[in-house]
Amino acid sequence: MAKPSAREKIVAAAMDCFHAVGYHACGVQEIVDSAGVPKGSFYNYFKAKELLAVEVLGIYWKHIAIDMLSNKSIAPVERIRGHFEHIASVYAEFGYERGCLIGKFVQEISGLTPRIRHDVVTELVRWSDLLASTIREGQADGSIAGDIDADQIARFLINSWGGAASGMKIARSRAPIDDFFAVGLPVLLHS
Amino acid sequence: MAKPSAREKIVAAAMDCFHAVGYHACGVQEIVDSAGVPKGSFYNYFKAKELLAVEVLGIYWKHIAIDMLSNKSIAPVERIRGHFEHIASVYAEFGYERGCLIGKFVQEISGLTPRIRHDVVTELVRWSDLLASTIREGQADGSIAGDIDADQIARFLINSWGGAASGMKIARSRAPIDDFFAVGLPVLLHS
Repeated sequence: MAKPSAREKIVAAAMDCFHAVGYHACGVQEIVDSAGVPKGSFYNYFKAKELLAVEVLGIYWKHIAIDMLSNKSIAPVERIRGHFEHIASVYAEFGYERGCLIGKFVQEISGLTPRIRHDVVTELVRWSDLLASTIREGQADGSIAGDIDADQIARFLINSWGGAASGMKIARSRAPIDDFFAVGLPVLLHS
Repeated sequence: MAKPSAREKIVAAAMDCFHAVGYHACGVQEIVDSAGVPKGSFYNYFKAKELLAVEVLGIYWKHIAIDMLSNKSIAPVERIRGHFEHIASVYAEFGYERGCLIGKFVQEISGLTPRIRHDVVTELVRWSDLLASTIREGQADGSIAGDIDADQIARFLINSWGGAASGMKIARSRAPIDDFFAVGLPVLLHS
């Protein structure tokens, strides 16, 4: 495997640092120290910490893989469950105590730059819309009960998922996610 | 009304500051500047920022009023709904964009002192236990469906509530809490 470039080291260090202490508390100095690259080189790659955060968030959203929800070859309920199981596997890889990077940014949302805020909100809305579409597919084929508005279920489930991801940080385990799979998902999708 | 004491000013400033930027990013200097008291006087009242955080959290938990869930003169489903509506009124008072102080501390949980971590976890568990007891009362009197474990419903609802409270910060409104009341609570309690 090729050795990581200085740029890749910066991105990886920023991912760790944002996850650990959040966007504000994580300074450029801390990132370059952790990456083991000279501070001067940082600005060769990123004009500002803001642009690094945009890139790190983009990578994290790719890990989350919300486009799995567009894969119509899988039945809606299975697709939704499989998507959340995929995110759970990302958490497992990073360690449950880290929680979710999106949740970390949401906690700081009012103090973020307009560009970062826009990126976070846009992707959250796209995620919710994709989930609502999948729920509507299930309502149309009868596999999901049709008596509740799909957009409302989607928004509730995504916020519940975020809460469960925060809960992981306390439980230091998958337990809150297990509650989501055992209780929240089946009850909301089949009620 | 009596003028607030220096101690009260420090506590109020810390509540605002922890809410805005979190425990770590909020320094003693920032708190005393915001409170308008000399830094030297801080240590007359609090030996460390940690003890101030313990006091602020204690006040916040009193606002949340989880002991409302022990009031057996109100029917279980109404009591649960009334309790969450009470918390929603606390959020409304502080402004939805502030989100929930408990959620803010949970995001930082791995970096908190053992004393603060212990306080946060203990109260969260007590809250979940009180909610589970209330759900069990409802299951016993037939007002809540009995096919799901009450502890599991309680844990899922509290994490979902936390997620909705984070969602408020983005929506800058009560909308995510409305989803909780419209979808999450009725479906989970009556399924």
